[in-house]
This record gives sequence, C-alpha cells and structure tokens, in this order.
Amino acid sequence: MGASTNVSRRTIVATLAALPVLSGTLFPASIQAQTVSAADPLPSWNDGETKQSIFDFVTAVTREGSPDFVPVPERVATFDNDGTLWTEHPMYVQLVFALDRVKAMAPLHPEWKDKQPFKAVLDGDMKTLAESGEHGLMELMLVAHAGMTSDEFSKIVTDWLATARDPRFKRPYTELVYQPMLELLAYLRANGFKTFVVSGGGIEFMRPWTEKVYGIPPEQVVGSSIKTRFDMRQGRPELFRLPEVNFIDDKGGKPVGINEFIGRRPIAAFGNSDGDLEMLQWTTMAGGRRFGLIVHHTDAEREYAYDRDTSFGRLDTALIAAAVNKWTVVDMKKDWKVIFPFER
Amino acid sequence: MGASTNVSRRTIVATLAALPVLSGTLFPASIQAQTVSAADPLPSWNDGETKQSIFDFVTAVTREGSPDFVPVPERVATFDNDGTLWTEHPMYVQLVFALDRVKAMAPLHPEWKDKQPFKAVLDGDMKTLAESGEHGLMELMLVAHAGMTSDEFSKIVTDWLATARDPRFKRPYTELVYQPMLELLAYLRANGFKTFVVSGGGIEFMRPWTEKVYGIPPEQVVGSSIKTRFDMRQGRPELFRLPEVNFIDDKGGKPVGINEFIGRRPIAAFGNSDGDLEMLQWTTMAGGRRFGLIVHHTDAEREYAYDRDTSFGRLDTALIAAAVNKWTVVDMKKDWKVIFPFER
Repeated sequence: MGASTNVSRRTIVATLAALPVLSGTLFPASIQAQTVSAADPLPSWNDGETKQSIFDFVTAVTREGSPDFVPVPERVATFDNDGTLWTEHPMYVQLVFALDRVKAMAPLHPEWKDKQPFKAVLDGDMKTLAESGEHGLMELMLVAHAGMTSDEFSKIVTDWLATARDPRFKRPYTELVYQPMLELLAYLRANGFKTFVVSGGGIEFMRPWTEKVYGIPPEQVVGSSIKTRFDMRQGRPELFRLPEVNFIDDKGGKPVGINEFIGRRPIAAFGNSDGDLEMLQWTTMAGGRRFGLIVHHTDAEREYAYDRDTSFGRLDTALIAAAVNKWTVVDMKKDWKVIFPFER
Repeated sequence: MGASTNVSRRTIVATLAALPVLSGTLFPASIQAQTVSAADPLPSWNDGETKQSIFDFVTAVTREGSPDFVPVPERVATFDNDGTLWTEHPMYVQLVFALDRVKAMAPLHPEWKDKQPFKAVLDGDMKTLAESGEHGLMELMLVAHAGMTSDEFSKIVTDWLATARDPRFKRPYTELVYQPMLELLAYLRANGFKTFVVSGGGIEFMRPWTEKVYGIPPEQVVGSSIKTRFDMRQGRPELFRLPEVNFIDDKGGKPVGINEFIGRRPIAAFGNSDGDLEMLQWTTMAGGRRFGLIVHHTDAEREYAYDRDTSFGRLDTALIAAAVNKWTVVDMKKDWKVIFPFER
C-alpha cells in the first residue's frame, strides 16, 4: 500500500476493508462506496495538483450559476480501457486471450503446426510472433473472435476470465484494474456524469464484465468490432461473428466511434497512450471548460514504467500534446496511493 | 379527436390542454405527463386487447416475484422510427430532406441539370426518380448527407426541420409523431425501461431532435450511417462526413445494430414494416417473456392506410410473422383515440 499523507477514519476503514473475511460481512460494496464518498471521493489519490485538477473541473461544470456549468445530459466522460482502467503489460489482455484461444482450438486445426503466425503461438515463440506484425496479430484476433454466435462468444470470454491469471500478480485480469480510476468513475457518476469506455479493444470482449467491474453497462461501451450477420437457424434468430474487421476504435477512430455510438461530444476524456490522442483532442479542443487526463505509467515497482519504448500502450506524441493543451498527467508513482483494489 | 369511451377528469384535462394558449401556462409538459400517468398511462389508446397486452407485459416483467420479472438494467425497448413513431407517408421525411438539399445545392452543381437522378429531382419528376431505384436514391442521400462536418450537418437538419412543412397536415414533421406512441414511451420509461430508437433512417438525421420530441437522448439512437473521418484542420479537430455508406440499419441490420450499439438483447420491440421483422424476431424469440408490436396503418382518414402495396413502410411478411409469433398488432383506426399530439 502506498504512503498515506494522513491517518484518518478513512484509512482505518480501508485497513479493515482489506481483511477479506471482514470486508464481505461488514462492508458491502455499496457501504464502502458511501463511506469513501462522504469523506474524500478520491481516497486512493495523493493530494496535489493532479487530484486538485479533477476537483476543480468537476466543481466548475457542476455548480449552478458557474460560467462553466454543463447540464447533466451533456456530462459525458470517456475512458480508454487498456492501460487507463486496467493493466496492459506485459501484453494486452485481449492478446493473451487470443493466444489461449488459438491453443485451445489447435487440435481442430492440424494445419496450424506449419502455418504462421499460428505455429509461433503453439511453439511459444514470441519473437517470431512479434515479427508477424499487425497483420499477423489481426489474423490471430479474427480466429479468436469469429466463428461463433455473439452469445457463445460472450460465454467464452466470461469462462476465460474466470480462470485466466496474470503471470506476475497471480490474479484474475479483472482484479488488475486501477483503484484510483474506479474511484474517479464513481465520483464522476455521483456528479451526474455518464461514463463510457472507448477502447481499441474488442467491444464484445469488454461488455460481459464492464458493468460488474467498472459500473459501466454494455450500452456505454464503445470498442473495435468485427462484422456480424443475422440469420434464422433452425427457427432461432442468431448473430454470427464473421472473420472480417468492422471498425477499429483507435487513434482517429476514437472520435469517429464516439460520434457514432454516443452522438455527443464528451467534456472529459481519459487515456494513457498515443492511441488516445485524437479522443483527447476531440474532447478538449471544443471551446468551453473541458478536461483531458493521461495516465503515465511511472511505477515499475507496483505496476510498470513505460512510455516511448513499448509495444503496448506507447506514449509519446500524446505526452507532448498534454503539455501543450494543459491536460492533466497522472504520475502513477507519485499520484496514486494504491494501484489495485486488492492492495487496500 | 377520436371517440373517448368514458368522460373523465383525464378527458377534461386533455381538452383543456388542447387549447394552445392555456396549455403552455397551465400545463407544462412535466405536469401533463404526471397527470396522464396517475389516471391511465395510455389515455390515447382505446380500451381493448391491444392496450391490455401492453399492460399485461409490463406488469409481468416489472412485478417483483413474478416468474417473468426482468431487472431494470435489462429492460431494453427498441422502437423503429419511420411509420412507428412518426409519419412516413407520402414519403420518408428523410427523402424529402434529401430532395430539398439537392435543390438547395443545385446552383453549385450545374452538371445536375443533365444528370440523373438529380435532373429528376430538379424537374420534380417523381416517376423518373422512382425509376432510378435504390441506387439512385442512395446517390441522393449521400449527396445530401456528406461533404460537411458532423456539427454542420446537425445544424442543417435542425434548420430544415424548423421550416419544412408536411404538405397535407401543414405542420412541422416533428409534430407528426404518434401521440399514443409518445405515451407508450413514457409509460415504459416510468417502469424502468430504457427506450432506444432503432431506425433505417440516418443516425445523425435523428439525433438533433429525438431527445426533445421522444425523450430519447442521442446515445440511445441507432440508425444508418455514412463513414466519417477525423482530421485536425487549422488546429481544430473535425469529423468530416464522407459519401460512403458505413452501415444500413434495416432488416437483418437491425439486430446487428442493436447488438453493436446496445450490447443487450431487447425484451420489447416496436415496428411497422417488413424492415422491422428481424428486430422483432431477435427480440421475442429468445425465451422468457418478451413483447413485439406492429403498428398497422389502417386509418386513411386521420393518417394513412397501407401495408402490402407501398414503397414506404411495406408490411407483408412481418404481418404474417406477427400472427405466428403472437405479436400485438395495432389497428390504428380502432386502437388509437388520437393520432397526433395536436389533436388532443
């Protein structure tokens, strides 16, 4: 657990809540949230400029009579997922899923033994896999995501997440979400914001669990997708998932996806990589009081430290743009008391 | 105004509200809605099997302990727009808009004088226009909908709707919405339903006004779309509308759009034409208590009467399917006391 700047009732509550047996009995989720909310809505954020910038923005747009006041229906906030709400290292969770799917399906595809990029996956040869580039990864994704109905895919994802474990933290991936961001989501919603996920990840890979984990219902999730086809099969209506890209919700695709799915321009956007640059531009460069935030991964000890030199979640141009546009940059190591919920 | 089966306080309120001067002063919208709700949530529906089937369904899925109970987050209801929520004759409003746009843009396109289907539009030659078929109409739609930013298009639609008038009723198109369906939308929402438009019409043609007219916010509108492209232009982020089809939200496209945009299967769906068949199949043929409804246009006197023999809103297969699947069929003439809000 990170250093706390003051010992308070809140700290004691958090400590008690960390005892797993007690937490279930004494502090059901709703009560925890209420306690947190009453004292400090962002208890896992250290005091400082970053935290203050969030409070200042929310106060400005929610106070009646404020020149920056925004009516409730227009309080739209969009959040990237990988690296912003949950961990994206050592590789995107969805890629781990795709590799596992390929391995599980391999017995039905003997030809994969001699065919890249499948051979690399089956041999555990990550170097060759990386060399297959975007095209190779896309091929894996389509194989992992297509060829079944939407309902079947939802079940495959749910079953996989129930058993898969992150190799470093030995936890389900849905526990590797950022506690400070969960508090931020709840704080914004308590102030009339509608929170959306806007991710490069697969929309149907996220929807089975975002409501439980983030409090974000399926209809508020925007993501990449493959094409589906409606068919009546033996008198039953089905949606079949086809091995064909429909939409890539990344970079310039994020404003496009926001406009198509939400139909409103957000007033706050949260990301962590160059893939989020255009979403933050679209959100903040529109006149009026707006808020952009970049999560900068600076904590190799508690999570990971990376920006320019990484394959997953590269942060370069967006960091420069953050300085120019006065977006808030979270220094994970300095600004976050805890990273994950299980550390509380 | 249609015949009322009983003279009640409700009827008196409705009569008073029909006086335009009084209605603004004495009965602001919220109070009208409240009054209606308390007595009979569907005052513009005549008593009978149709109305009762709505009450039965809503009671079954909302009563705690009912075997058909559905939790609030899963109470998703989807509504077609053209012919289900507003008038689609003598032609789709969006087609009227496209024709007007072509006429307005004609001075910049002298070549249209000799080029079909534009020539037909400029000559007012509806026969030749019809002969240009789906391809010709699509060409008009793309010209009318593309070539500007999303913000600019929203303003074009808003400005057009403010001045355009339906030739028969001499009213703005946004007044040619069905009063009984407005009541149904409000009744469902009062019972925890989230209401969505799922229309073959252009998503950005609908979003500027659905919140005001139907109480359905932009993020709950699903529709057809053209592609857009994000660009920074002179330091400003813009979304440009391109003359290229992105998605057609009709027939089998409706379940696809519902799955992509909403990510939940509806438990109730409302349509009026064969274009809604697949949406109703997807909604109702899923096990559990579900509700499908078809508006059958049977009232040539107060609105229009059509089903099999029409270019706009053809109803044939879906009517047969309604009988097989026990969907509720609204007989407009018999079931609706009034058609439009201004008749009250």
